[in-house]
Amino acid sequence: MNVGILTIGNELISGRTQDTNASLIARTLQVQGWPVVVILSVGDDEAAIRAALGLILAQADAAIVTGGLGPTADDITTAAIARIFALPLATDEAVLAYIKSIFEKYRLNWTDNNAKQAVFPAGAEVIPNPAGTAAGFALRKGNQVVSVIPGVPREVARMLPEGVVPLLRRAFPEAAACVATRTVKSFGLGEAEVDRALADADWTGMGVEIGFYPHFPENHIVLTARAESDAEAERRLRAAEAAVTGRLGRHVFSRNGDALEVVVGRLLSERGLTLAVAESCTGGLITDRLTDVPGSSAYLERGLVTYSNAAKVALLGLPEAVLAAHGAVSEETARRMAVGVRRQAGTDLGLAVTGIAGPEGGTTAKPVGTVYIALADADETVCRQFAFRWDRRRIKMIAAQSALMMVKRYLAGEVQQA
Amino acid sequence: MNVGILTIGNELISGRTQDTNASLIARTLQVQGWPVVVILSVGDDEAAIRAALGLILAQADAAIVTGGLGPTADDITTAAIARIFALPLATDEAVLAYIKSIFEKYRLNWTDNNAKQAVFPAGAEVIPNPAGTAAGFALRKGNQVVSVIPGVPREVARMLPEGVVPLLRRAFPEAAACVATRTVKSFGLGEAEVDRALADADWTGMGVEIGFYPHFPENHIVLTARAESDAEAERRLRAAEAAVTGRLGRHVFSRNGDALEVVVGRLLSERGLTLAVAESCTGGLITDRLTDVPGSSAYLERGLVTYSNAAKVALLGLPEAVLAAHGAVSEETARRMAVGVRRQAGTDLGLAVTGIAGPEGGTTAKPVGTVYIALADADETVCRQFAFRWDRRRIKMIAAQSALMMVKRYLAGEVQQA
Repeated sequence: MNVGILTIGNELISGRTQDTNASLIARTLQVQGWPVVVILSVGDDEAAIRAALGLILAQADAAIVTGGLGPTADDITTAAIARIFALPLATDEAVLAYIKSIFEKYRLNWTDNNAKQAVFPAGAEVIPNPAGTAAGFALRKGNQVVSVIPGVPREVARMLPEGVVPLLRRAFPEAAACVATRTVKSFGLGEAEVDRALADADWTGMGVEIGFYPHFPENHIVLTARAESDAEAERRLRAAEAAVTGRLGRHVFSRNGDALEVVVGRLLSERGLTLAVAESCTGGLITDRLTDVPGSSAYLERGLVTYSNAAKVALLGLPEAVLAAHGAVSEETARRMAVGVRRQAGTDLGLAVTGIAGPEGGTTAKPVGTVYIALADADETVCRQFAFRWDRRRIKMIAAQSALMMVKRYLAGEVQQA
Repeated sequence: MNVGILTIGNELISGRTQDTNASLIARTLQVQGWPVVVILSVGDDEAAIRAALGLILAQADAAIVTGGLGPTADDITTAAIARIFALPLATDEAVLAYIKSIFEKYRLNWTDNNAKQAVFPAGAEVIPNPAGTAAGFALRKGNQVVSVIPGVPREVARMLPEGVVPLLRRAFPEAAACVATRTVKSFGLGEAEVDRALADADWTGMGVEIGFYPHFPENHIVLTARAESDAEAERRLRAAEAAVTGRLGRHVFSRNGDALEVVVGRLLSERGLTLAVAESCTGGLITDRLTDVPGSSAYLERGLVTYSNAAKVALLGLPEAVLAAHGAVSEETARRMAVGVRRQAGTDLGLAVTGIAGPEGGTTAKPVGTVYIALADADETVCRQFAFRWDRRRIKMIAAQSALMMVKRYLAGEVQQA
């Protein structure tokens, strides 16, 4: 069962809005095992919609259309599609009552153009919108199905899995498999290295599809299993996940799509440990990530962005002689920052980062990208030196990631060095 | 002069990669005044490429094609387009010598499949690639032009303005205007409010196009002027910019596309002032943004993420009695945090944020989204209370933006409240 995607809106073809719907739809269909053969974007223009739908229906079993279902005059999708399929328009009274109830609930002023959102081509199946007022609809034409939903990404994210996919599974039962999918996240290997590490496994033989998605500085591996039963799909997925994690080993930090700061936060909570952070070159990015997790105040005691040497001395008790002898970017300084922030905060762990994010400040001995990361507990302090390339922002990102990864490995009882 | 865009690659139609090229190309063409009539994405498949190009050339004067120009077997774009236009393939010796020189320069191992990147349809005009090895090419068919460039976004970003746009300006001289463009950034008005504030001006009469681009929590206004001469385009742009900034007033923080942290950093540098920051709910995001700017160590002395009350007491000298009487999220606490961090750091300015990012921790009196931001100098401390809605991450983002905006207004001598 092949699908074509059509996204409609003047804002898309003018480049004003980046179309994220097409990519989301394509990924969702890929999970179901339904290949996408073409993606089109056109403006709010009937002739363009007609030509685009013609191209899709010449080669695909189903079309998924987004955009142009709103109440304003430039939202012409419903009327255009009705004319293209030579169908009259009719108001769906149940949908109209629902839209009016939404307006009453939120005390919005009713204007008659909103009734437009309850008008559909005659014979269409309504696709409810749990996240907004504009419902979608689906039309059958012979063995082909055209599904039309609004273009608001938040609404697409709900209506696609809840409305369109079930509808297509009913319309094409022979193409409806039981599907299970999972995202494994890794850090520390390049995309090519991940590719190579996973190349020798027979994923097709295991009944799974595998995809690689670089998300700097991480690499995500998405596994999809399709089978006759949910249990079998889940069994295949577990076997494939074990094969991935076995091959990528200590580079895997999440087997269920969780962000690294979520993983670190959960490990800290489970072990009842607290953390304090002293950042120099990462500038607060580590605590920004940690505090994105609800409830992080339970384990994150404080963060110090000791950007000046004076702050390092005053807040971390770092002897000026150490800074003079070793420099602010040195293993000695990183170790003393970690020990200092832990002692001052009275936490179980102290994490510290110091480095040169550039573009200025590098030397031959310590070029831009030189970063030291140290982690202290009551007994010992470990420190690692890194040599990152990249620009200033990405050095900050990869240094923050490396620091969180060091905490994760400590908490999980893994070795720090390979 | 109308254009159609075709992006080619299996990674696009599987949803593995978000296509950012089409949007970049559309924006670039929009600036030139060339409407995009359709955008298509297809896989590395000759029949699909043929159908897509057919659709474009049925309605547009020019096609811009990206992707599938690499050295591997699945890169079929050049051969497919040669067959579609019934042209033989020929090696361009100059391009071949250039590619070989790149390999020698970077000491890469030469394999013969790389020679594929020097093969073009006979009669094609080569479009040089200053950012990679795969050159592009352009073909004329009657009055129509098909330009083909690689799909690597970094290469598109160079080849489009340096190769494709000049080529199309030469091919369609009647559509080649002098163009000037500028981005004005605003914060504090919703998209609809920006729209309303700018609705009464006659932009067309001023000879400019105006576009609104929401970038949470900012709104960007892009002005484009096209004229017979660069001087006239620039004159129109300046007049339109004055009209925008006059209407949006104190909500404008950048007239040249600079980020807010860049504007704040420049104002601090110009005035020779230093800053220290105490963050609670923003968790380090303010200093993360400030330290994205090269050279920020000249004015940012330190940042403190005082997530616990103990940290607020120990690092900011906040009396426990104040925390007990007013609570950690209160005007009194915010003011004392700003005064405290300024005094401890010995800086000219102290900035402080305390609030409830949620999803837990809200009360009836202080619901989630309650945020206090204070700014202290030697003479006085100003404090503002905010009631944000949104989720945890966006409350952090809008609070950090509001705090930086407060510093910007202080430095620019503007009033804080409207």
